[in-house]
Amino acid sequence: MKSLLILCDGMGDRLTHGTTPLETARKPNMDKLSAEGINGVMDTVRAGIRPGSDTSHLSLFGYDPYKAYAGRGPFEAAGVGLEVEEGDVAIRCNFATVQDEKITDRRAGRYEYGLGELAEEIKNITINGVEIIFKRCAGHRGVIILRGKGKELSAMISDTDPESLGVPVPESKSLDNSKSSLKTAEILNEFTRITMGILKNHPVNKERISRGKLPANVILCRGVGTTPNVLDFEKKYGIKAACISATSLISGVCRTVGMDIIEVEGATGHTDSDIGAKATAAIRALNELNYDFVFLHIKGTDEASHDGDFNSKKKMIERIDTEVIAPILKNVKDTTIVLTADHSTPVALKQHSADPVPIVITGDVRTDLVIEFGERTCARGDLNRICGRDLMNIILDLSDRAKLFGA
Amino acid sequence: MKSLLILCDGMGDRLTHGTTPLETARKPNMDKLSAEGINGVMDTVRAGIRPGSDTSHLSLFGYDPYKAYAGRGPFEAAGVGLEVEEGDVAIRCNFATVQDEKITDRRAGRYEYGLGELAEEIKNITINGVEIIFKRCAGHRGVIILRGKGKELSAMISDTDPESLGVPVPESKSLDNSKSSLKTAEILNEFTRITMGILKNHPVNKERISRGKLPANVILCRGVGTTPNVLDFEKKYGIKAACISATSLISGVCRTVGMDIIEVEGATGHTDSDIGAKATAAIRALNELNYDFVFLHIKGTDEASHDGDFNSKKKMIERIDTEVIAPILKNVKDTTIVLTADHSTPVALKQHSADPVPIVITGDVRTDLVIEFGERTCARGDLNRICGRDLMNIILDLSDRAKLFGA
Repeated sequence: MKSLLILCDGMGDRLTHGTTPLETARKPNMDKLSAEGINGVMDTVRAGIRPGSDTSHLSLFGYDPYKAYAGRGPFEAAGVGLEVEEGDVAIRCNFATVQDEKITDRRAGRYEYGLGELAEEIKNITINGVEIIFKRCAGHRGVIILRGKGKELSAMISDTDPESLGVPVPESKSLDNSKSSLKTAEILNEFTRITMGILKNHPVNKERISRGKLPANVILCRGVGTTPNVLDFEKKYGIKAACISATSLISGVCRTVGMDIIEVEGATGHTDSDIGAKATAAIRALNELNYDFVFLHIKGTDEASHDGDFNSKKKMIERIDTEVIAPILKNVKDTTIVLTADHSTPVALKQHSADPVPIVITGDVRTDLVIEFGERTCARGDLNRICGRDLMNIILDLSDRAKLFGA
Repeated sequence: MKSLLILCDGMGDRLTHGTTPLETARKPNMDKLSAEGINGVMDTVRAGIRPGSDTSHLSLFGYDPYKAYAGRGPFEAAGVGLEVEEGDVAIRCNFATVQDEKITDRRAGRYEYGLGELAEEIKNITINGVEIIFKRCAGHRGVIILRGKGKELSAMISDTDPESLGVPVPESKSLDNSKSSLKTAEILNEFTRITMGILKNHPVNKERISRGKLPANVILCRGVGTTPNVLDFEKKYGIKAACISATSLISGVCRTVGMDIIEVEGATGHTDSDIGAKATAAIRALNELNYDFVFLHIKGTDEASHDGDFNSKKKMIERIDTEVIAPILKNVKDTTIVLTADHSTPVALKQHSADPVPIVITGDVRTDLVIEFGERTCARGDLNRICGRDLMNIILDLSDRAKLFGA
């Protein structure tokens, strides 16, 4: 059997006035999955560990995040299609605003005019023999890759994004006093100075200011990392796998472990995303493109959660029910289907929590008594409480694709 | 308290027309255990991992199969009473049939005439200073042990049983090009040639052919392995332990970890086994022979599962209920009793799956609401979902024999 993993980012929640967005949402198709499937809750990394979206996805794909995770940067870089090589240091960054030598906006007012043109100006800079590749991502975001010779660079350096306002741009510093990290920090600081010089008097910024907007005159860096050396997903499990996600971090994780990436027009990674088009792409990948395993990621639930918006999260779940689950139920046959989340993001907290996520698996399973998909109903299902690291093995076993261990 | 672990091989199942052999079976005594005990489900190796019977038993006895497992051969050899020494390479084998230089039957027609006599002819052969001990097991099966000096031999060689027909007997090859494995493969190939020469014109085979049966004229080898170096079970747990099993692989695992083996007349390891005699032996081992822990293994459920026979599996479970559980309930007092399986073998799959197995523990336990022993009813019990590696510790704790960790 084939398998389909549908993941709604941050969908799990805690109680707000005694209930959760998922419990309140009208979602007959998700409930149908629960009624037909086996339900449970899942700790995506480990009980009590608040997962990032990167670490939780690594874990869900069967990789130990404590070994495979070495910073967010490389996944962001892979997610925008950059080839990250062994020895590269990859860093996420923002166009931001400095005024009177102090950071006044970490996102340059979220105003996108001219950012593409600015990115062109700084896309390839060489400092001291180290090549620095800059690529703009969505909105004010970007990634840089520092590429030296052999192992001359290190990710053991501090960020230049202070994640606060009213302070000067901090220098990157070595975190371990190694020769390689001292050099890397020095190069990153030189990159900051050079790009500030280029951006300061650029016509784009003059135009932005004349429009009463903030200039994009500095690049702030955070999430320094190196690419993990992981076993290829398709080799690990003996399946052909595809990822559908509009979130670069997630498609970056998927690309890094070796999945094919299917791009979908209209998919934005926000609550306004054309998630119906993503569902169509997932159905096509299973029925026509002959993938054995399709991973379908939907981000809107997490966005609404970070905004602390109970109703927006509830509505996003209802949209997923109608636009994603309904067509999948109709068009996907003889397939192990899993619906779950990568972590909880309680709207009251506006950030990730370690509360386990609800999960349902349909297909050749021991159907249980649960008839509603929710945080608390699933906790009473026959799957009990499972660990994210085991999910792929469970899926492959139920799809009759698991190898026997022993005799 | 003493403890008794009753294990019905492959008893767990998936749903066939909405139910399982265990759920359908009339089994008032197993249900009584559930009603009086605490129930749950168990991943014998790890969630999603399809266990062999050898790896699952190692795990259930508290040994990490990822460290302790090194092939099935040594357990089969130990199971038929051979002493396997450190450095020995042990291999399972079959009497088989070669005609016109091609394998035509991997089990010599399952016809047993004269196999004991043939076994005598090849029971001890020395090649190049390496002693080769052959012992016949049940039916067409056997084991061989290659015993060299020190570490001159290696298990890193390929099988000579191709597990297919119409092909010549393959040469065993080194899997890692080490000196020891090259030598071992060469000796095994020489053993194959020598035994083929001995068997070819043997009177037994002439008689078999004259009866219109297939000759047993070649030994095919598979499951090459070395004995794991494991801590003695009785030392590990501080208990005197006995195993009752008619399956050589299982009694081999038990002998390897250091349990006493109790032989029972009429126990066959098949659905026709005198399982009542095994129950009597278990009761006697606890009440008269002063064992602290008795492991009672029943194979018939797995056999029926591999045959894909729902009704035969259901009937076997009903026999176990009447002939094993009933007398145990009547005669075993003040004992922690566990009833479970080593893995699921869904009848629809005819092979092992990773679906967790039902488990009930009676004795000094927190009795729960479950009143029926089954895959799904147990999943709703208060034991929740446990891991096989923890079972012995749980049993010893409930029997008030566990050591305190810390102060």
